Amino acid sequence: MIGNFTYCNPTKLYFGKDALNGLNEELPKYGKNVLLVYGGGSVKKNGIYDKVLAALKANGKTVFEDGGVMPNPTSEKLKEGIARARAAKADLILAVGGGSVCDYAKAVSVSVNCDDDAWDKYFIRFDDVTCDIVPVGCVLTMVGTGSEMNGGSVITNREQKLKIGHVFGENVFPKFSILNPEYTFTLPKYQMISGIYDIMSHILEQYFSGTDDNTSDYIMEGLLRSLIHSANIAVQNPKDYEARSNIMWIATWALNTLVAKGKTTDWEVHMLGQAVGAHTDATHGMTLSAVSMPYYRYILPYGTAKFARYAVNVWDVAPSDKSEKQIAEEGLLAMENWMKKIGLVMNITDLGATADMLDGIVDSTRIMTGGYKTLDKNDIRAVLRASY
Amino acid sequence: MIGNFTYCNPTKLYFGKDALNGLNEELPKYGKNVLLVYGGGSVKKNGIYDKVLAALKANGKTVFEDGGVMPNPTSEKLKEGIARARAAKADLILAVGGGSVCDYAKAVSVSVNCDDDAWDKYFIRFDDVTCDIVPVGCVLTMVGTGSEMNGGSVITNREQKLKIGHVFGENVFPKFSILNPEYTFTLPKYQMISGIYDIMSHILEQYFSGTDDNTSDYIMEGLLRSLIHSANIAVQNPKDYEARSNIMWIATWALNTLVAKGKTTDWEVHMLGQAVGAHTDATHGMTLSAVSMPYYRYILPYGTAKFARYAVNVWDVAPSDKSEKQIAEEGLLAMENWMKKIGLVMNITDLGATADMLDGIVDSTRIMTGGYKTLDKNDIRAVLRASY
Repeated sequence: MIGNFTYCNPTKLYFGKDALNGLNEELPKYGKNVLLVYGGGSVKKNGIYDKVLAALKANGKTVFEDGGVMPNPTSEKLKEGIARARAAKADLILAVGGGSVCDYAKAVSVSVNCDDDAWDKYFIRFDDVTCDIVPVGCVLTMVGTGSEMNGGSVITNREQKLKIGHVFGENVFPKFSILNPEYTFTLPKYQMISGIYDIMSHILEQYFSGTDDNTSDYIMEGLLRSLIHSANIAVQNPKDYEARSNIMWIATWALNTLVAKGKTTDWEVHMLGQAVGAHTDATHGMTLSAVSMPYYRYILPYGTAKFARYAVNVWDVAPSDKSEKQIAEEGLLAMENWMKKIGLVMNITDLGATADMLDGIVDSTRIMTGGYKTLDKNDIRAVLRASY
Repeated sequence: MIGNFTYCNPTKLYFGKDALNGLNEELPKYGKNVLLVYGGGSVKKNGIYDKVLAALKANGKTVFEDGGVMPNPTSEKLKEGIARARAAKADLILAVGGGSVCDYAKAVSVSVNCDDDAWDKYFIRFDDVTCDIVPVGCVLTMVGTGSEMNGGSVITNREQKLKIGHVFGENVFPKFSILNPEYTFTLPKYQMISGIYDIMSHILEQYFSGTDDNTSDYIMEGLLRSLIHSANIAVQNPKDYEARSNIMWIATWALNTLVAKGKTTDWEVHMLGQAVGAHTDATHGMTLSAVSMPYYRYILPYGTAKFARYAVNVWDVAPSDKSEKQIAEEGLLAMENWMKKIGLVMNITDLGATADMLDGIVDSTRIMTGGYKTLDKNDIRAVLRASY
């Protein structure tokens, strides 16, 4: 553990098959007007929308709708949501969906009572929140982003070809989140494994940084082992409740600030993936999987000891008679084979990236400084080329 | 993950060498009257008392004192503390010390505005808290109990020879805790290793229960590996900041409710240890270490698979060509050798337990049902005999 830090995560979680009953505990705490935020309509098909609406009605709420939040919520849609929340005089924003819907709800929540343009204020200038925040609750239907228990919000500006995340403070965290693993059963396989890799990437972004001895790294090795184990089961049987519940729980703890405490972190894979996403509109987790192996192989020589530890403690690579470099490389190979086995996209061409996009993706990739090597533009280009 | 559960842990933590500055963030949130609770006076010798008092004065507080909280806080002392808090019209109870002081502060906090006898209400009848709670803050000087981020409070009734814990809800958790690893540097070795084993026992009580596949078990294996690693360093060099900071952080996460979520737990070691403590007034962690090996060897046949997993994942026992039982036994042997190596007390005789106390200890041991075998009185007697 290094440095000074604070930790506070006040989000209340309701977990399990009966989690939705938590709404009856939470809704009475808020005023009458609820802005119900959701995505493309899958929540209407699978019945979750009806259940949530019934709970809202039973608790005497006036419901205002804001559907159609897209997988990469845009700054344009954000403007619309802010206007809707204002018109509704929303006392609570209830997000029903995955990370995108929850991210979007948080971006609306900090902008309703604020005159500035939300995109400029939070995603270009990274301003602090100075206005009153409308509380957010979340009913999660897709796992991966951890948005249900953190202050993260990623918004895409299509015109500017930028996809940018703002990590808000604990006052912006959802007040409560409803986590029913069964709600994730109907998700298409592509979305499920994309979410699984998003979780893994969140952990690895925080793991592959620093050389100090830190309890967080031990916790992350446990989370990774559990994730790999449960992912293998879920890919075979998406309705295995135990596996899906473990994956849901790991997703939350991978990115609710705990494992980053007292250590440095990287996040370059997300910067690369988000740049790819801004140009292709591809699914978030797949942009991460497509750039990961080229990136990790590129930086391995600068963090060999940690990659070797990863190989042994997460992938059960036997260290006998091998050099640290060999052990490290075997770990990445095991990871790559596993990624292919569960069906992840392994290069950005398969996500629609074309040769003429390369310069633009390089330009919109933010450069982070917490990883084992701080890349320059040429390094970024080399990593992306290896993913073509 | 099994069953339905809720999770909420609102305690704000300030961690690191500058953690005490957190008082300047927190104190302004509360009224003028602060009841300053501490133990036998070591905080006066090591200067922490002066630093805290200076922060209280700088924030314009009127300070009322309640010192002399003993390692196993008694129901008699609790009565005194309640009277002091009432006389002070305390707006905040600030506990400066280890788990005992923090436990005691919580017991006072739920009793100040309550007419019933606190011991009877919370520790005999296990009543809910129905009165207004005085908020508690904590400056931690000793690690082990996790009391800085949970609702636990253990009180001893010397007359009744009972040491009983009540786990209060999140409204009783400390509002904030100050965790500076340097504050633990001056602790005598006996107290340090006792605290380390208290942490280990908290994890094992939650680990050795259930047969489902649960992310919590993977997290706990990580916590245990990190604890063993850092304990080995701290025993050699008590002022190794990295090791002491990891131990402090593990202590918090071992018992702040996270790793018990979605799984069953045991706690029989604590019931045995607390019964020994009630009769001998021995240091808490040492009562746990003294009963652990006899207990785990006694229940091993009923949970062999988990003990074998523990051996491999925590103690690096090589599974090659061995039966599950052999692997499990090797794991416990490795644990026992390590316990002896760092200097833990391995039998209750060394804690002052005499033959004539046996019946009394057996009688005051609560029987739990979450472990791999539910003991009866004869089992309890056999386990305790093996610790004589």
